[in-house]
Amino acid sequence: MRRGIATVSLSGMLREKLQAAAAARFDGVEIFENDLLQFPGSPKDVRTMCEDLGLSIDLFQPFRDFDAPSAAQLARNLERAERKFDLMQELGTQTILVCSNVQPDAVADPVVLAEQFAQLAERAGRRGMRVAYEALAWGSQVKLWSQAWDIVRRVDHPHLGLALDSFHTLALRDDPSGIAQLPGDKIFFVQLADAPWVNTDVLTHSRHYRCFPGQGELEVARFTRAALDAGYNGPLSLEIFNDEFRAAPARSNAVDAMRSLLWLEEQVRLDRAAESAAMQPPPPPYKVPLFDPPPPARLDGWSFIEFAVDPAAGAVLAAWLASAGFVSMGRHRSKQVDLYGQGDVRIVLNLEADSFARSHFEMHGPSVCAVALAGADPAAAVARAEALLCPRAIGRIGQNELAIPAVRAPDGSLIYFCASSQDGRHAFEADFILDAGADVAGAFGQGARIDHLVHAVPAGQVEPWTLFSRAVLGLVPERNVVLHDPYGVIRSREIESLDRAVRLSVTVSERENTSVARSVSRQRGAGIQQIAVAVPDLVATARRLKALGAPLLPIPDNYHDDVLAKYDVEPGLLAAMRELGILYDREPGGAEFLQLYLLPFEERFHFELVERRGGYAGYGTANAPFRLAAMAQWRDRQPGQPAAT
Amino acid sequence: MRRGIATVSLSGMLREKLQAAAAARFDGVEIFENDLLQFPGSPKDVRTMCEDLGLSIDLFQPFRDFDAPSAAQLARNLERAERKFDLMQELGTQTILVCSNVQPDAVADPVVLAEQFAQLAERAGRRGMRVAYEALAWGSQVKLWSQAWDIVRRVDHPHLGLALDSFHTLALRDDPSGIAQLPGDKIFFVQLADAPWVNTDVLTHSRHYRCFPGQGELEVARFTRAALDAGYNGPLSLEIFNDEFRAAPARSNAVDAMRSLLWLEEQVRLDRAAESAAMQPPPPPYKVPLFDPPPPARLDGWSFIEFAVDPAAGAVLAAWLASAGFVSMGRHRSKQVDLYGQGDVRIVLNLEADSFARSHFEMHGPSVCAVALAGADPAAAVARAEALLCPRAIGRIGQNELAIPAVRAPDGSLIYFCASSQDGRHAFEADFILDAGADVAGAFGQGARIDHLVHAVPAGQVEPWTLFSRAVLGLVPERNVVLHDPYGVIRSREIESLDRAVRLSVTVSERENTSVARSVSRQRGAGIQQIAVAVPDLVATARRLKALGAPLLPIPDNYHDDVLAKYDVEPGLLAAMRELGILYDREPGGAEFLQLYLLPFEERFHFELVERRGGYAGYGTANAPFRLAAMAQWRDRQPGQPAAT
Repeated sequence: MRRGIATVSLSGMLREKLQAAAAARFDGVEIFENDLLQFPGSPKDVRTMCEDLGLSIDLFQPFRDFDAPSAAQLARNLERAERKFDLMQELGTQTILVCSNVQPDAVADPVVLAEQFAQLAERAGRRGMRVAYEALAWGSQVKLWSQAWDIVRRVDHPHLGLALDSFHTLALRDDPSGIAQLPGDKIFFVQLADAPWVNTDVLTHSRHYRCFPGQGELEVARFTRAALDAGYNGPLSLEIFNDEFRAAPARSNAVDAMRSLLWLEEQVRLDRAAESAAMQPPPPPYKVPLFDPPPPARLDGWSFIEFAVDPAAGAVLAAWLASAGFVSMGRHRSKQVDLYGQGDVRIVLNLEADSFARSHFEMHGPSVCAVALAGADPAAAVARAEALLCPRAIGRIGQNELAIPAVRAPDGSLIYFCASSQDGRHAFEADFILDAGADVAGAFGQGARIDHLVHAVPAGQVEPWTLFSRAVLGLVPERNVVLHDPYGVIRSREIESLDRAVRLSVTVSERENTSVARSVSRQRGAGIQQIAVAVPDLVATARRLKALGAPLLPIPDNYHDDVLAKYDVEPGLLAAMRELGILYDREPGGAEFLQLYLLPFEERFHFELVERRGGYAGYGTANAPFRLAAMAQWRDRQPGQPAAT
Repeated sequence: MRRGIATVSLSGMLREKLQAAAAARFDGVEIFENDLLQFPGSPKDVRTMCEDLGLSIDLFQPFRDFDAPSAAQLARNLERAERKFDLMQELGTQTILVCSNVQPDAVADPVVLAEQFAQLAERAGRRGMRVAYEALAWGSQVKLWSQAWDIVRRVDHPHLGLALDSFHTLALRDDPSGIAQLPGDKIFFVQLADAPWVNTDVLTHSRHYRCFPGQGELEVARFTRAALDAGYNGPLSLEIFNDEFRAAPARSNAVDAMRSLLWLEEQVRLDRAAESAAMQPPPPPYKVPLFDPPPPARLDGWSFIEFAVDPAAGAVLAAWLASAGFVSMGRHRSKQVDLYGQGDVRIVLNLEADSFARSHFEMHGPSVCAVALAGADPAAAVARAEALLCPRAIGRIGQNELAIPAVRAPDGSLIYFCASSQDGRHAFEADFILDAGADVAGAFGQGARIDHLVHAVPAGQVEPWTLFSRAVLGLVPERNVVLHDPYGVIRSREIESLDRAVRLSVTVSERENTSVARSVSRQRGAGIQQIAVAVPDLVATARRLKALGAPLLPIPDNYHDDVLAKYDVEPGLLAAMRELGILYDREPGGAEFLQLYLLPFEERFHFELVERRGGYAGYGTANAPFRLAAMAQWRDRQPGQPAAT
C-alpha cells in the first residue's frame, strides 16, 4: 500500500514535519492548509522540498463550507476554490478535500447540493484537479459517508469522488460495511484515525482525542477493509488531531505513525484471509499487497530485570536488594554483571564500564535499563519487532555465551527476548557462574514470580507505549484508570497478554509532586517504577520479610478499620494485615487481592508483593490512594524533605 | 455565615489540609473518608488537631450505597453504619453524609427506601448522630433533591435530613427554586461547587471539573439563595473534585476557596436585596448576615506597566523599547524609576536597588512586576481587594509623592490602582520629572492605548486568576479558547470589564516548547507575555514603526493569499498588510480586526498592535496559529537555537 500522513498529525514547522514523514518512510503527505499558510516560502518551494524528500503530495486539505444558500455566495466560493486550485497547481497536487458544510445555512436539499458540486467538479476538471468530498461527523446537513456518496453519485462527474475518514464514520457508530459496495474508483482518498471512546461531543472528540490506529478503540481495521474491498488502492493516510501529538517530537511520532499503519495492514490482511478461507471460491487478492510481518510470538512472562549502576551505586542497590530478601546468585561469565534472585524473580545489576548500561546510568542514575521477556521463540519475537520498526540492539557476546536478542523500547531502554525457563531454571542463567549454595527461595519464597511491571512515563508517552505493546509485543491494552495521589492525579493504562502471563501498567502524572512524577523526574524519564511480585501466601512472605528487617510500608489502622466495616474478613487475617501493612480488595464475585509494598529506593522504584486468590484479575485500584498517601507520608519523613505532616 | 470546606478540596495529607483551612479562616471542615483512612493516627488525634486549629468537624462523608435489595445486605449496611458512628464519636462529629445508591440493585420503591432510612435514622438517633441524605446526580434511582426530600419527608425522623449540593442540582439543569419552600431545619448540610459547562457525562463532570464558585458557569448564587430562603443557617461548605486542585498548593488554594465563598455571599446578598426592595412588605433579613464588602470600583483602563530590571537589564530593555518607538519621558522624583511613553501607553522601568522590583528581578529576570489600573476611586478598589483577602502592598513614599495603593495579584506581582487620567494626562505622572520636549505621540501615534494584556501562567493558575479578576476586580470571565502553537496546545481565558475598557487574557500551556510555556519558563512564572496596544490607524502606525526600523514580525505571503481568497479586501490594504506583516480578521457582521506583532524580548514578552474597526470584539483567535508559527520561525533562526526549518 501507499502510506501517507497529514502534516497536521505532526508537530513543528512544515519542513520538520516533512523531514519526519520522509525519515519514517512515508510515501506521501496531505498538506494541511494552515501548515502551508505558515510556511515562509512559496507553494513551489514546498513542492521542491517534497520532491527532494521523495514524498508525493497526495492531498491538499481542507476546503470548508463550499455549498451556499445564495448564488452570490456560491460564486464567491467557486472563486475561492479557483484560488486554491492555483495554489495546488504550484504545489503539484491534484486532489482537494472538501468537507461537508458546518454552517447553519448549509444546503440541505440533495438536488441543490448536487447542482453546486457539479459546478465545482466542472471547474476542477478544467484545471485537472479532483474534488474529494468528505462527510464531517458534525456537518450541519451531511454527516454520514452515505450522504456524501449520494451527492457524488448524483453529480456523476469524473472529477468528483469521496474522501472517507474512519473517525467520522466510526465515532458516530455508523456502519462502514456498505463502503465495500462502492465503486472503488469513486473513492478518491482514505484517511485513517483511531480514538478512545470518550463521553463528549463528536467535534471535541475529533479535535482532541484522535490517535493512531491501535492506540484507541475504534474498528479501524473493519473500516479499512471495507474501502479495500471496494477496490480502493490509493494511499492509506493518517489524519490525527491530538493535543499530545501537537507537542510530541515529530520524528519519533512519525515512526509511531508508520508502525500503526503497518500493524493496521496486518490486521486487515488477517481479517480478510480468515474470511477468504471460508469462502468458495475465495475472493481475489487485493491488487496491492498488505504488510505481512512475522506474527507475535507467545510470551510466558518476565525473565529478568536489569539495573544500570556504577560500582558505588551498585553497592547501595545490592544492599537494598538484600534488605528485601534477595540472594546473590552469581556473576556473569565474562562481564561485570551480578545476578540476584528470590523465588523465580531475577534481578541483574550491570556494572560494565563501557556499555549501554553505563551510558544509561550516566543519563538516568540507578534505574532499570532493560527487561527480559521469556517465550518459546525469541528469534521470531525479535523479527517481528524489527519488522515493526524497533531498532535491534547488538551487544558484545563472549565465548560460549548466549546471544540474547534485544530491541529498543520507546524510551530507549532494551527489551530482551529469552528462551522460556526449563525445569525451573531460566535459560539466560547459562551465562552466569552460579553459587552452588545459594538458597534462592529467599524471603519471597518458592513460586514467587513477577506479576506486573509499572512503567512511569513522561506526559505524552502513554500512546507510544500502548502501540508498542500492542503491535510489537502482541499485548492487549485494557483499562484506563485514574488514581489519586495526595499531590495530584495519576493515569494508568493496563496492558496484558491474553493469558495474563505478561502484564504491565503504563502510568503518567502531569503534576510534578506525585509519586509517579517524582520517579520520572529522578530517573530523567526512565522508566520502571514498580516491580510487582506474585506470591502464593502473602502473609507468610510478609512475615519472613519482617523477620529479615525488610522496610515494609506501614498502612494506618484507620484503613483496616474500614476493611472490617466493608468486608467479612477472618479476624486472624485482619490482624496479620494490620501488623504487616497488607492492603485488601475483593471483587464482586469474591476473588480476593492482598498487596504489600516495600519502601522505595530513592523515590525511584519499589517492590510490590501481591497474592491473587480465586482469579482476582485487577491491580487493587481501590487501594491506590492509601498506598500513595502512605508513600507520601514516608517521603515527608525523610531527611531533607519538608515535614508536611 | 459559618464557612466550611471538605478536605477532598485541598491537596496533600490531612494535617496540611486542616492547617491550610484554618489559615484561610474557615470555621469548619467536612472530613472526607479517604483522608481519614490515610491518616496515621486515630480519629481522636484528628479531633484534637481540629480543636487546636479552631476548626469544627461539621460532616463526615461519604457513606455510600446504604439501601439494599435484601434484608441480609441491609443488616450488613446498618452494621457498617454503626462502625462509622463509632468513628464519628471519636472524631466528635454528629453528621454523616449518606449519598444516594449508585449500584444497579439500588432500591427504587420510595416506600421501601423510606423503611430502610427509618432504620438508619433510628440507629443514628440512638448514637446522637444525624444522617444527611444527598441525591447524587448519577444515583441509580435517586438523582434529584426532590426525590431525596420525598424520602426524608416520608421518614419524618428528627435524625434524618437533607444534604444539598449545588453541583448535583445545577449540573442536571434541575430547578433549585423549590428548595426555598423546604423546612430549613430539615436541611442538615449545604455543599457548594461551581463548574464550567463541559460536554461530558455528569459523573466525569463532577469528578474532574468542579471548581470554586465564581470560577465556573453554574448558578450557584441562585441555589444558595434557595437554601437560605428556606431558613437554612448551617455551614456553607465547598466540596470540589478537580484535577488541578488535587495538585495545587493547599495554602493558596484554601485562600481562593474562602475568596470564592465571600464573593458568593455578596452575590446572594445583592440578589436578595434587589428582590426585597421590590416587595411590600419586605421579607425579613436572614438570621445570619452575609459578607458585605465595598462594591467593585469602576475601572477605565490601564495606567502603566512596570518592569523590574537592574541597571544592565534596564539598558537593554530601554533600547528595545526605543526600537519599538517608545520615548523617554522622565525620571521619578525620588526613585531610580524611568518613564517611557508612546501615545497613551506608559511603561515604567524600576531600577531601584532595594525594592520589591529588585527582588522580583532577581527571581524572574527582566519582567513585568506590576501593572496599574486606572479608575475614579482607587481607595475603594483597594478596600474591596483587601476585604477579598488580597494582601495590601505598602511601598516607601517620598515627600510630595502620591501614595499609589497596591495589592498582590495571585502570582505575587502588584496591581496598583491609580486615579483616572485628566486632560489626557495620567495622574501618576505627577511623581515624575517630565522632559518638557518629549514628543510622546511616538510611532504608535496619538490615541494609542493598551487594548489588553496577556498573562502567561503556569498550569493550574487559570482558575485562581479567573476568580481574582471576577471577585476582586469586578471583571467578567468570557470565552475559553484553544490556540495551536506549532509545538503544542495553548488555552486562554478571556476576561473583560463590562464596558471592555479593561481586558486581559490568561493563558496556559501544558507542554514545554510553546511560546507561552517558554515565556513562563524564562520568567520563572511571571507573568505578562503580551502588551496589546490599540491604535486608530494600524497601517499608518506600522509604516512609522517600519521607518524607525522596529522589529516587525514577518508574516508569510501564503497567509495573505488566503486572506484574499476568503475576503473582499481592498487591494491597497492587502498590499500594505503583506508589506508590513499585518494579520486580518472579519466578524460575520463585518467588523474588522488588524493585528501586527513586534518581535519578542528574549522570548519573554512582546507588543501586539491592533486596530478594531466597527466594534470588533474579539482577539483575532483565528490568526493565532499564524502568529505563533511566525514567532517559532523567528525563534528557530536565533543564534543558539536548533535550526528547525
